Amino acid sequence: MSSTTMPPAATAGDAFAAELRDTLGPGALLHGEAAGPHLVDVLGYTGRAAAVVLPRDTAEVAAVLGAASRHGVRLVPQGNRTGLVGGALPDGSGRQVALSLSRMRRLRELDPLNRSATVEAGMALSELNRAAAAHRLQLPVDLGSDPSIGGLIGANAGGSRLLKYGDTRRNVLGLEVVVPDAHGGPGRVLDLLRPLRKHNAGVDLKQLFIGTGGAFGVITAASVALQRAEQSTDTTFIALPDYAAASRVLDAFEQDFGDLLCAFEVMSSASLEAVTEAFPALRHPLPAPFAQCYALVEVASAMPGLDSLLAERRDALLARLHADGLVLDAAPGHTEAFWRLRDALPEAIARQGAALSFDVSFPRSRLAAFREHVVDWLRRAHPLLRVYDFGHFGDGGCHLVVSIPSAHAAAYGIARTVQLRGALYELAARHDGCFSAEHGVGPLNAAFYRKHVDAAAQTLAAGLQTATDPLAVLGRFRYG
Amino acid sequence: MSSTTMPPAATAGDAFAAELRDTLGPGALLHGEAAGPHLVDVLGYTGRAAAVVLPRDTAEVAAVLGAASRHGVRLVPQGNRTGLVGGALPDGSGRQVALSLSRMRRLRELDPLNRSATVEAGMALSELNRAAAAHRLQLPVDLGSDPSIGGLIGANAGGSRLLKYGDTRRNVLGLEVVVPDAHGGPGRVLDLLRPLRKHNAGVDLKQLFIGTGGAFGVITAASVALQRAEQSTDTTFIALPDYAAASRVLDAFEQDFGDLLCAFEVMSSASLEAVTEAFPALRHPLPAPFAQCYALVEVASAMPGLDSLLAERRDALLARLHADGLVLDAAPGHTEAFWRLRDALPEAIARQGAALSFDVSFPRSRLAAFREHVVDWLRRAHPLLRVYDFGHFGDGGCHLVVSIPSAHAAAYGIARTVQLRGALYELAARHDGCFSAEHGVGPLNAAFYRKHVDAAAQTLAAGLQTATDPLAVLGRFRYG
Repeated sequence: MSSTTMPPAATAGDAFAAELRDTLGPGALLHGEAAGPHLVDVLGYTGRAAAVVLPRDTAEVAAVLGAASRHGVRLVPQGNRTGLVGGALPDGSGRQVALSLSRMRRLRELDPLNRSATVEAGMALSELNRAAAAHRLQLPVDLGSDPSIGGLIGANAGGSRLLKYGDTRRNVLGLEVVVPDAHGGPGRVLDLLRPLRKHNAGVDLKQLFIGTGGAFGVITAASVALQRAEQSTDTTFIALPDYAAASRVLDAFEQDFGDLLCAFEVMSSASLEAVTEAFPALRHPLPAPFAQCYALVEVASAMPGLDSLLAERRDALLARLHADGLVLDAAPGHTEAFWRLRDALPEAIARQGAALSFDVSFPRSRLAAFREHVVDWLRRAHPLLRVYDFGHFGDGGCHLVVSIPSAHAAAYGIARTVQLRGALYELAARHDGCFSAEHGVGPLNAAFYRKHVDAAAQTLAAGLQTATDPLAVLGRFRYG
Repeated sequence: MSSTTMPPAATAGDAFAAELRDTLGPGALLHGEAAGPHLVDVLGYTGRAAAVVLPRDTAEVAAVLGAASRHGVRLVPQGNRTGLVGGALPDGSGRQVALSLSRMRRLRELDPLNRSATVEAGMALSELNRAAAAHRLQLPVDLGSDPSIGGLIGANAGGSRLLKYGDTRRNVLGLEVVVPDAHGGPGRVLDLLRPLRKHNAGVDLKQLFIGTGGAFGVITAASVALQRAEQSTDTTFIALPDYAAASRVLDAFEQDFGDLLCAFEVMSSASLEAVTEAFPALRHPLPAPFAQCYALVEVASAMPGLDSLLAERRDALLARLHADGLVLDAAPGHTEAFWRLRDALPEAIARQGAALSFDVSFPRSRLAAFREHVVDWLRRAHPLLRVYDFGHFGDGGCHLVVSIPSAHAAAYGIARTVQLRGALYELAARHDGCFSAEHGVGPLNAAFYRKHVDAAAQTLAAGLQTATDPLAVLGRFRYG
């Protein structure tokens, strides 16, 4: 399309779009209603955009970065928009451009002997795992959502089996990334894709792009390490007198099962009640009137044929823990039913009222004390509110939801909830916690990054971003 | 000491030393003979220095960086000088200053429930592991040497159990780092120490300092994740017809033992003969006339009481592999004797003649082909030389030593060996390999970094170093 058929280029976004329409062809740009689905995320959070660009390959991504540099347009890379900090959406100005990787979803290579796969950024995690399953392999990041691989890496997602398999970062062997050119030329393609487990040749540049949501470069492809699929599993649901007991039971399971301990999820009894109330089809596996919390414990290995041994050891351990008063009751088996309960928690709790969600993490030794402290404080300072907590106790993670019953919504306007959020993060910091365990940093929690991250670290992060992207072409969140 | 009692400050190094003598006290600086032990490394590689500085705490490190900025002195951080690329030593100019962390070796915290330890950079790995062992914990980086924790992290060491436990990077939870101030003030202390497993709050800055040998900042302390000590182990020594069989046997062990496979080391029969020849006390466990190579396979878990089950499964697997012709013979048990053989390889091979050592890595699926290719090529192009290979086959690592028998030393001058090294790295690159699997980058292999690392990646690495250290205060190796 020549420029004479274009409407007058009123903004940088229009000129940018016109150039890309020529370069990439018309199907690569969406505007207006067609762009809509790209401007809302899983939370219902919305943005506006001058355009949505959908490149088909790495060279096109490089061209998009070049055009953005020349026209002074900010790009916000996005995958499946399943993130929980609003990082995949352009802001409300309508001047930013969403760069969707959704048309780049090829499996470039799957190497069973190397246990690795090289995939384009737009491929969904579930799609990769289907291909891997044919070889009894998996990318073991266990989430409630189905992000694109690029989004998964940009968020450095954690999930429920981090205790055994680590976060996304640990499973990334290589990346292909397009970084902006300092002089407005096409983006430069960094080929850091080789699927090597030992690779120690200077700065590990790929780390810069993991967990930074596209603010340093656009991930176009990734090589990931695959793990053998689990062949032996034992799952138990446990009623616990309190959180201190949860810590001791975690330690005991690690003593007896070592590296086979795969997940140790803890949820408060209030959280579990919210689930059984919201979803009557999900039955409480183990109503225990004196339980303060419950644990879902999974032991697993890719070594086959261990099921009966694991069950035997689990029974012996539970008998000891029960005799010591650390376990009130336990129900083994039923892996899928237990995980359905666990995975229904966020939605069930959301139904209890307006939810203020916190994704915090601690040294495991501090979790119980933090939880007690925060519940006490809320009871005193905010007696009208309810608190629900659940999460990845085994790796120090805690999802905490403060719920405002609709009857009291009027008493909790924006100023008061902002103050409450701030106070709760203060409490977390006093227990050596982090304000973002596994969701990353985006517009929804940027203020807490400014407040809680070491000032010297913020300065360095900003300097690194300026060095990588001096024209500020990239990123919903800027570190400077 | 006032400046009037100093000899005339002939160089920047002298003025720098005078200032630090005032600030840190006289014991913190070594010159001349006293500095000697700090100027030679485990390879016998040597450097010269204007001084060796030995700060006692993080604040003193910050002061040293400030003085270095003001006097234009380059600092080279060093630990136990066990690295294999010369990265811990000042160059030969005599103008650089060695910054030794050897007086900072405190265990700041060991948290058994969190399975973590926070230690100062100068503490030795063995010292940390002794403290951890009291709690049946370990930092599972398994090396032939005993680096300081700072050196371990600066080199991102790999080792023999990477297959199960990952490299050093994977085991680091947090760092305390001093980075240079852009305006010549005291170094800025980055407190990134919190021992969190889930910590996803923007750029993971600590990654910049892992594997970069002090070129971006001085690591003064680290928080590391500890693993449960192994409680069940099964080790087997296996004679293999060839390297293709080694790949298939690796795959079969992973199918049967999954995540319990801990080490899969392969060595050529020539390498093993070199050991039994050099150290007659070390007996060949399994002389097999038709074996091209041998594997040391270790299966292990922190889950106790699995020894007899592992032995049973191993026997069944070996019988199948033997029937398929993939295994010629096997000797189980004798864990310590097997590892003694394995660990004696480097020294035994060094006795065969002048050694050109290569630390290369590949996708596991490419290892056998590379090995065949390189041996063929050497046989044709350099028939007087011998080649020995051994290493971490299970994670794609390969230590390859080209040995020049003393009778032919005259035929291999510097030019020819330089050419040979270059040609061999070319071969590795053609098999998607990396020129530095686990030793890092330093003066001994910097030329290969320049040649084999993606040009756009080198530019970015240099830009990041300039952003972090604009006055070029740090680093034996500069990325620019």
